[in-house]
Formats: sequence, structure tokens, C-alpha cells
Amino acid sequence: IAENSTGELLDMLSELHYADIAEIVHELDDEEAIYIIKLLDSETTSDILAELDEDVRETILRKLSAKEIADELLELDTDDAADIIGELPKERVSEIISQIEDREHARDIVDLLRYDEGTAGSLMAKELVKVNENWNVLTCVKEMRAQAENVRRVHSIYVVDDEDKLKGRLSLKDLLTTSTRTAIKDVYIPKVDYVSVNDDAEEVEKIMSKYDLEAIPVIDELGRLVGRITIDDIVDFIKDEAEKDYQLAAGITHDVEADDSIWELTKARLPWLLIGMLGGLGAASIIGGFQDVLTKYQALILFIPLIQATAGNVGVQSSAIVVQGLANDTIKGEIWSRLLKEGLLGLVNGVAIALIVLLISHFAFGTTYFESATICVALVSVVIIAALIGTFIPIFLDKRGIDPAVATGPFITTSNDVFGILIYFLIAKLILGF
Amino acid sequence: IAENSTGELLDMLSELHYADIAEIVHELDDEEAIYIIKLLDSETTSDILAELDEDVRETILRKLSAKEIADELLELDTDDAADIIGELPKERVSEIISQIEDREHARDIVDLLRYDEGTAGSLMAKELVKVNENWNVLTCVKEMRAQAENVRRVHSIYVVDDEDKLKGRLSLKDLLTTSTRTAIKDVYIPKVDYVSVNDDAEEVEKIMSKYDLEAIPVIDELGRLVGRITIDDIVDFIKDEAEKDYQLAAGITHDVEADDSIWELTKARLPWLLIGMLGGLGAASIIGGFQDVLTKYQALILFIPLIQATAGNVGVQSSAIVVQGLANDTIKGEIWSRLLKEGLLGLVNGVAIALIVLLISHFAFGTTYFESATICVALVSVVIIAALIGTFIPIFLDKRGIDPAVATGPFITTSNDVFGILIYFLIAKLILGF
Repeated sequence: IAENSTGELLDMLSELHYADIAEIVHELDDEEAIYIIKLLDSETTSDILAELDEDVRETILRKLSAKEIADELLELDTDDAADIIGELPKERVSEIISQIEDREHARDIVDLLRYDEGTAGSLMAKELVKVNENWNVLTCVKEMRAQAENVRRVHSIYVVDDEDKLKGRLSLKDLLTTSTRTAIKDVYIPKVDYVSVNDDAEEVEKIMSKYDLEAIPVIDELGRLVGRITIDDIVDFIKDEAEKDYQLAAGITHDVEADDSIWELTKARLPWLLIGMLGGLGAASIIGGFQDVLTKYQALILFIPLIQATAGNVGVQSSAIVVQGLANDTIKGEIWSRLLKEGLLGLVNGVAIALIVLLISHFAFGTTYFESATICVALVSVVIIAALIGTFIPIFLDKRGIDPAVATGPFITTSNDVFGILIYFLIAKLILGF
Repeated sequence: IAENSTGELLDMLSELHYADIAEIVHELDDEEAIYIIKLLDSETTSDILAELDEDVRETILRKLSAKEIADELLELDTDDAADIIGELPKERVSEIISQIEDREHARDIVDLLRYDEGTAGSLMAKELVKVNENWNVLTCVKEMRAQAENVRRVHSIYVVDDEDKLKGRLSLKDLLTTSTRTAIKDVYIPKVDYVSVNDDAEEVEKIMSKYDLEAIPVIDELGRLVGRITIDDIVDFIKDEAEKDYQLAAGITHDVEADDSIWELTKARLPWLLIGMLGGLGAASIIGGFQDVLTKYQALILFIPLIQATAGNVGVQSSAIVVQGLANDTIKGEIWSRLLKEGLLGLVNGVAIALIVLLISHFAFGTTYFESATICVALVSVVIIAALIGTFIPIFLDKRGIDPAVATGPFITTSNDVFGILIYFLIAKLILGF
């Protein structure tokens, strides 16, 4: 590609969608990428920049001057511009902001940088079409045309009062079918869904999916219309959240991708492996404490992995269901009834597994009746307790305001491993021991 | 609520959005739910039905006559109607279809039932606005007005030729700013993204998120425009898929929710527990085969859980990253380079863990040098091999056209448990044994 026949390359790229060019840029090395970015006009490159992965974008932005970046940002919607600039070091941000020619655009971007990640404010864009309730249809259409220039897609026309407070929305159809002298006050729809800047992004997502909205207005603490969130931002948000939960459940602490460096991947993976290791060492000291039982009943050793694996699997299942239930608001009622249900479920599953193991251990491994009984009672108990732990911990975390998604995967597996083995040997001691 | 003051109830409900009423219906028992459904007009109830969970909807539909259901379906978009009717038994479907008054609507629904789940065809709706390239702007506007009545939200106006083949799209702005006698042929935009009815839903999702589309036209095998998919269907699809993958990774075989019955939950959970059990029994027979090593070096027993937990955790991490990488197309290049990278990563993580365990086992558990060496070498090997298995299996499944998401969670944990213990004892035999 990069054989430098600039004209041809430009022709080729101009045929492509910016999202496709972004994909190509990902495949290139740094120099080639910057060559392409500098080649294209800032209208296209700004969109490409917004599409790129954070790390690639970072290297490219480092090679651009503050003025060049400012020009790129000018072409972007305020929300994308704020996202990009939010990743840069502070000194650089103010330098770039001061270089943005359109002062209003710059002010909007600075405004958006204020909001914490994960709030409605951080997702919204400033671009929207709003009209005053005191205008008539004619003024309104004129104003709208001017505003619509800055807005890529007009989803809704919002109606505000003199203090910029959100009053309702306007249907394009009504606007076109009423006389030009009608006051907006008389035609707007006062019922409109909205969110507040400080609302959780998850809350926004729920409202928008529930009511199938394609855009939602955002108001500030005073009820003033300050932005809007569009469905494509929500799609990105949903996908990011799902990835994060999936990785958390797999014991990966921060967002990594398959093509990240070994160092990045190790940083994300080692912490949970170390916690798992501590659990393993904990289990080792438990086993150490029951040496006397083990030397007398060697057959019990064989079933350590079975007990441990079952405890882990049950715990992960229970916690995953609870975590999803909490996310979807399908978990209602008392925690006790929830635990009772999981306990019953554990009893059913535990007895089913224990019966099969009873037969196999007795016939294939020749365990004595007492040993078999130990294994079976331990299995049932372990399944029930693992289910209870898997249910309780996410609910407990959620009540404390901690994301319950951290409590699946290795966390549950590790704690259940330790508990499972402890229960196993306690029961062994009870039935066989003394 | 259900104290039967019909008038008040009706007033109250008419204030609410259908999605909110659907939530209320979920809380009610069957009789109350049906009472409410029969109370409201079919325009509202059809939307409520579309919002309800499958199982609740099923009980309600069972109580309604074919004619009543037909009236509900008439009010719905074809895609929602097809989704609802697709869940019913076959005899019932044809009875209901024959009762739908609008024959064209009925035909559209039947058309949609043809498509396999998970294809673009199964997601699309028939409602769309299309114009012929040979019309002029005036005819076009007239026709559009008629068509738009059936379409809840007009995202795009599609342009077709006389054979109904998709030619391009029309911007509303261009339509409004050109003279009424201009031919559509001269103003439409020939560049339009589209998908084919048989395309994978995932493919559709990728295209729509990549290009930030809010609707995409769907063409059949002959290139004819047959429907469109809107972003809200894609949002639902993304969320469903994410839930499914999450549950698969947790060892839950089919879609369940926290409030399902114990029987439903057992059906979804027991299969993987049984596979885990088989793994545990496999591990038991491996340990049984190495009895001689164990009786000589009892300290090795202590570290069985550690080896097993580490193998499981590493495997889940590796497989989760690969599964996500496959879903996002970030995994490129040769499988060998991928395995090499995971192997190196395993080496780094493995050595880190082994060094810590070396110190702790020696000082806290008093293992001999040879025993410590065995444990450490085994840990490093197990981590590397677990990482390789976790990487290889999803890639292998993906190449065979099987959803790689089944290969995380209990599947990887179980296979790694067994391999981990086997490796542990093989190395023990090698270093200590003979």
C-alpha cells in the first residue's frame, strides 16, 4: 500500500468509509498510519481518529501538533471530541483547547470533560435541535435549519422555555402540517423521556432500550436542556459493558484484547492467578491439618479434585445467574427466599451427582461404605454451600454498592475451592474420624 | 390494583407507557394479567404483548382466541408479530393467520416466519418506505405519505427499480430542496449499505455498529428489497447474545433467569455439573494410578488443589480472551503465533506463581527440595499447557464452525483439571519417582 503513489492512494481511500480506513490504519505501522492521516483532509481523519482503538490513537496524536489536533476536533461531534481529548495529558488538553477556532465548540467540549465516566453527562453530545416554546412555527423552521447544520442526524426537536428548561418535544409531522403562525406552545408534545446529567449510564441504557428510543435529551440539575444521547453511543456502551463483565467473570482485571502485548496481558491476568494461588495454598494448609484422616482413609485423596471442581462449577453458575438477575432487575423480594431457592436447587443437583458418584466410587474405586457415604454427604453439602456462597456474595456486594460482576469467576471459584475442601474433610472427620 | 374499579384502572393505565404496563403485568398472576389485557384496546395490548417475557406471553396467549390474537398481530409491526407467532404451535399459527383481516400483513408475517433464527431475515421488518427510481419527486412524496402511515419511524427512504431491486437511498433534505418534477433517478444516492436475508445476525450487527447505522435495508437472493432492520432490534440482539455468552461461560446451557422455576434452572445447570463430575472422576483415577508416588511423598497431596485451581483459572482466562477476540475479529494471523504468544505469557505467569509457591511451600509446609522442585516445575508446565489448551480449543471450534463460546467456563476448567493433575503426577514421577 505505502509505495507512495500519493494520488492513487488518495483516490482509493476517498472511496472508502472512514470506519474501513480506520481498520486499515490498525494494520499499518506508526509511520504509515501518520502518513495516511496527514494525507487525508481533516473531515475524514477526524472520523477515523474517533474510530481507532485508544492505543493506536494515542501514538498518532503524539505525532500531531496541538493545532492539528484542534482542527480534527473541530470536525467532530462534541461527545467524540471530548472522548478523544479526555485521554490526553492535562497540559496538552489546555494547549489544544486554546487552539480550537470555534470558541463555542471548544466551550462545549470543556463542559463535557467535567462529567464523570459512566454518567449520562459523559455519554451525551451537545449537538441537538431545540426551539423555544414562545416562537411560532415559521421562526422555528428557520432556526431549526440553522441548527441542523451542526447536527449529523436530527432525531427529535426539543422544546425549551426562556430559561432553557426542557418542556417537551416537537413532531416533524405536526410542524409541517400546521400553519406557520401557530405558536410552538400550542403544538408541542409535553410528554418526553429524559435523563439527568448525573444519572448512571446503565440507567440511561435501560430507559432507552425499554422505550426503544433513538435519542434522549439530557437535563442538568436546574432542568435545563444541556445535551442528548443517541442510540449509537448506547450500542457502544452496551458492548463495552458486556465485554467488561465477560472478562471479569473470566478473571481478567482490566480491558485487554487478544492482540495486546504480553506485558499488558500479564498485568490483567496475574492478579487473579495470585488470588487463586492463595486459595490453593489455603487448601493445602487445610489438607495438612487433616493428615491423620488421610493416612487412614487414602481413598479420600482421590476425590479431592471432584469435590473442588464441583464446588467451583456450582458457585460460578449461581453467581452468574445472580449477577445477570441484578443487572436485569429480575431479582426481587427477600434475600432469604432467594437463598432458600438456591439451597433447594443445590439439594436437587447435589443428590443427583452424589448418587452417580456413589455407584462409580463403590464399584470402580472400591471405596468402603463409610468412605462412599462421606464422599456423597460431602458432595451434597458442598453443592448446597457453594450455591449459597455464589448467591450471597454478589447480592451482598450489590447492596454495598460494589459491582457484583467482580464476584464471579475466579473469586467464587477460589473461595469455593477452599470451603469445599474444608467441608469435605470436616464431614470425613465426622463420619470416619474421631 | 385488581379491585375491579374498571374505570379508574383504565384511566391509570392509559397514562402509562406500554413498556411500563408490561412490567406491571409481569408482577400479576395469570388471571389478573388477562383481565388487564382484555380491558385495554388492542393497540396498547399488542405492544404490551411484544414486550412481555416469552413464558408470561405464552400463558396469556393460551387464554385468547385465535381471532383475538389475530387482532393483536394486526396492530404490530411484522417483525414483532412474526416473533410472537413463531413461538406458538403450528396448528394454532395457521388458524391465527387465517383470521388476520389485512391479507397483506398476514402474507408479510408468513414470509418472515420462513427465515431461520439468527439470520438477517429473522430480524427484519417488512415496514419500510420505498420509492421507484422512475418516479418524479411529486409522485414520490405522495406515495411516501401513504407508506409512512404503516411505518413507526422512517429512517431512510429506499430507492428501487421496476423489478424492486435496491438501487440506493434518498435523503429527505434533497427531496425537500429539489423541484417537484425532478426524476428520482437524478437525485438519489446510489451508495447504500445493505445486508442479504441469509446473512448472519452477527454480521448485520457488526456492519450497523461499525457504520453507526440506525436502519439497514435487507435484500433477497435476487437483489430485491424485502425489509429493513432497525437499531432497536440490534440492541436487543446484542444484549441477548451477551447474556448467552455470559451464561455459557458460567456453564449454563440454556437461557434461564433468576426467577425461573427450580426445574428449569436444574435442567440448565445439571449438564455441566455432570461433565465436571466426570472430570473429577477422571482426576480420581489418575491419582489412583499414582498411589505409589503419593504414599512416598505425602506432601504432594497438599498441592493438588493448587495445581488444579491454577490450571482452571489460566484456562478460563485464555479461552475468554480468545473467544472475545474471535467475536471482535481482533485475532488475526497464524494459530501458531497465537499459541506461541500464549505459551510465553504462560511462562511469565507460571514462573511468577511458582517462585512464590517455592518460598511458601518450603518455609510454611516444610517440603524437601525435590518436592518443591516438583511442585514448581509442575506449576510452570501446567500454566503453559492450560494456556495453550484454553487458546487452542476455541480457535479449533471456531474453524469447525462451532460457536467458540461453549469452550470457556466449565469445559475448559474440567479439561484443564484433568490435564493439570496428570501433568503434576507425571512430573512428580520424573523428578522423584522411579
